[in-house]
Amino acid sequence: MVLTTLLLFLSVSPLVKPEMFTALVHMEKSIHAEKRLAKEIRSYVTKERERLNELERIANEYESHAESAMGDMHATLANPVSAFLLVKRFTTDWNDVLNKYMTPNNTNQFIASLPQLTEGFPSPEDLDGAAVALLRLQDTYVLPTDKVAKGEIKGVRYSPKMTAQDCFQLGKVAYSQGDYYHTMLWMKEALTILENETSKTIEKPIILDYLAYSTYMQGNWIHALNLTKEWLNEEPNHVRAQSNHDYYSKLIREAKENGKKDEELDVVNNPRQLDEYRQSEEFAKYEALCRGEETQVYPLAHKLTCQYKRHHPYFILRPLKEEIMYFDPWIAIYHDLMTESEVKRIQEMAGPRLHRSGVFVTEDNKSPTTNYRTSQRYLWCLLFLTFLLLHLTIFQ
Amino acid sequence: MVLTTLLLFLSVSPLVKPEMFTALVHMEKSIHAEKRLAKEIRSYVTKERERLNELERIANEYESHAESAMGDMHATLANPVSAFLLVKRFTTDWNDVLNKYMTPNNTNQFIASLPQLTEGFPSPEDLDGAAVALLRLQDTYVLPTDKVAKGEIKGVRYSPKMTAQDCFQLGKVAYSQGDYYHTMLWMKEALTILENETSKTIEKPIILDYLAYSTYMQGNWIHALNLTKEWLNEEPNHVRAQSNHDYYSKLIREAKENGKKDEELDVVNNPRQLDEYRQSEEFAKYEALCRGEETQVYPLAHKLTCQYKRHHPYFILRPLKEEIMYFDPWIAIYHDLMTESEVKRIQEMAGPRLHRSGVFVTEDNKSPTTNYRTSQRYLWCLLFLTFLLLHLTIFQ
Repeated sequence: MVLTTLLLFLSVSPLVKPEMFTALVHMEKSIHAEKRLAKEIRSYVTKERERLNELERIANEYESHAESAMGDMHATLANPVSAFLLVKRFTTDWNDVLNKYMTPNNTNQFIASLPQLTEGFPSPEDLDGAAVALLRLQDTYVLPTDKVAKGEIKGVRYSPKMTAQDCFQLGKVAYSQGDYYHTMLWMKEALTILENETSKTIEKPIILDYLAYSTYMQGNWIHALNLTKEWLNEEPNHVRAQSNHDYYSKLIREAKENGKKDEELDVVNNPRQLDEYRQSEEFAKYEALCRGEETQVYPLAHKLTCQYKRHHPYFILRPLKEEIMYFDPWIAIYHDLMTESEVKRIQEMAGPRLHRSGVFVTEDNKSPTTNYRTSQRYLWCLLFLTFLLLHLTIFQ
Repeated sequence: MVLTTLLLFLSVSPLVKPEMFTALVHMEKSIHAEKRLAKEIRSYVTKERERLNELERIANEYESHAESAMGDMHATLANPVSAFLLVKRFTTDWNDVLNKYMTPNNTNQFIASLPQLTEGFPSPEDLDGAAVALLRLQDTYVLPTDKVAKGEIKGVRYSPKMTAQDCFQLGKVAYSQGDYYHTMLWMKEALTILENETSKTIEKPIILDYLAYSTYMQGNWIHALNLTKEWLNEEPNHVRAQSNHDYYSKLIREAKENGKKDEELDVVNNPRQLDEYRQSEEFAKYEALCRGEETQVYPLAHKLTCQYKRHHPYFILRPLKEEIMYFDPWIAIYHDLMTESEVKRIQEMAGPRLHRSGVFVTEDNKSPTTNYRTSQRYLWCLLFLTFLLLHLTIFQ
């Protein structure tokens, strides 16, 4: 029983932790790439500046030449050498300038080198993943949107404050997944933050566009119409804004004709879309548990203990830290089973072998990652852990 | 007779003067264009510098972010807001940087605007014209190449000294017209000047390429071979240099087999290519006349006079300045027939109407200019001149 429980713990654990771990490896790669990129951008800037300095020198030379030559043309053209040099100046010499300094070659070359430089960067799919994780967390912990936007999440170090543009991007991910509940929340937050931004990180109309539409999709027609009017205030000639305005107006008119009252229509609802499982009591309990709420009272809780265990020579100098959680079935947590350096060593060795598991699709032989199957190949880790577990359990 | 002679003078005159005049108008346009161009280049440089400053700021921000984030990844990823912002940084934010600052748009736009900006610039054909004029002048006045290269031409203000690259370009025009005589002269001069240039205006091998070939074409095989060896010294792997080397070697070997002696082959001749007319005595006289040499003795020269003429009220305050040149037929020059300001006024009025005459080609309806027909449409000038001439002649 003990073994089963422990193995259960271990086989659940990789479903959560390695995701963080892969993200870590992935992000560390990105950070390395970022540093390299900074260096390359600077060397590109230097190269381009040299080109521009040369062009500026040429422009200055042109100007002073033009000014001195203007009043002097007769004398210049009288000497056929001067005349030849003057014509040459405007033909082959100018062509040389064109070919040497008036080209986007540096830029095009640099752009061509970027895919390789940013190879370690996360993909748009990763952005969606991070956004979904954030939204799920917001739901689970019932966090107010403005708190999240300030980065104030309990138990972890506060993050930088989100800009209006950050909120907008988060809302946009929600929008792209048909999640109008979060779209509404975050577009509203984007608007609020935008009001107070001294240097605007995004333009108002584009937020209003998304906000009005998600508001409409959540059933708030009058509010959607008002937001669209605000949008038209900013962009009176926007074609889609105009046609949306007309469409919402028509919907409201028809609803009124069908007997709906103003009070019924002029509300702002934002229902959370939940599938069957997420509407279940089990899911509610799971979320409550995540929040650290007690979902049931354990009458024997006062008898639960913690102790050091030294039942095998391996544990004499470093005893197991056992915390009993439940008596029947017997459940215990072993704290600090591995040292920090052991964890690190395993991560280092496993790192290069890790990639996100996928569902095998035979059609085009691609293996896409999915957001419901995120366990990792953890065979190697398991070998070491098995050793520990053997000592922990068999010699119990 | 007088009228005939005068009209002859006038109808010859446009063959020479208006060319200078058109060139003047043309060049003044170029100079105006040059000034505008200088301004536009500077504004392009400013725009590009702003882009680069922004990129540099971004690079610095990337570097400091990468350095501070590296040791801190665990804490960053523990907060899902930070994690989202980090992933966003490397996806949408980076894409914004790409689209906004990592583009050749400024450059491409500026390049696209250049044809209009440089509309007034002379064409490659004009360069050929100026080169041919210079070479013709060199021939006519029997000017040493090094004098011309120094811009030292008697009677006109000295021009700037020619660079090796200037000489090369002049030689190249000669080369393109199959004129190996001048090609040899000017490529040699280019080499000489190049030796003394501290910052080289052109590379040696390309001069040697042209010089060796024109030397060969002028019949100096051994010298051509030596020049090619010098070229191979600079560029040992140049394929054409190698095959030329072999070809010249073969020619020399065969010539020797056919009994030619070393002394016969090892000369440096540079015969001037002249067509039948240019070989005539008439042409020799024309060139001598240009040089101001006396081609015949006029026994009555001591009787020739200059006088003011006031034979009509129009000329009372401003008499004609008559210089008798010949008695039978009677030839005279009238000096200062028009004032400077009158000349200028005519030029100003005629300027916009002037273009080089062409030979009409029906095939593609284009009217190319040719270098043997350079007279201008001078109808308008003629009206005014006719008035003067009437007074000058009819009331004689």
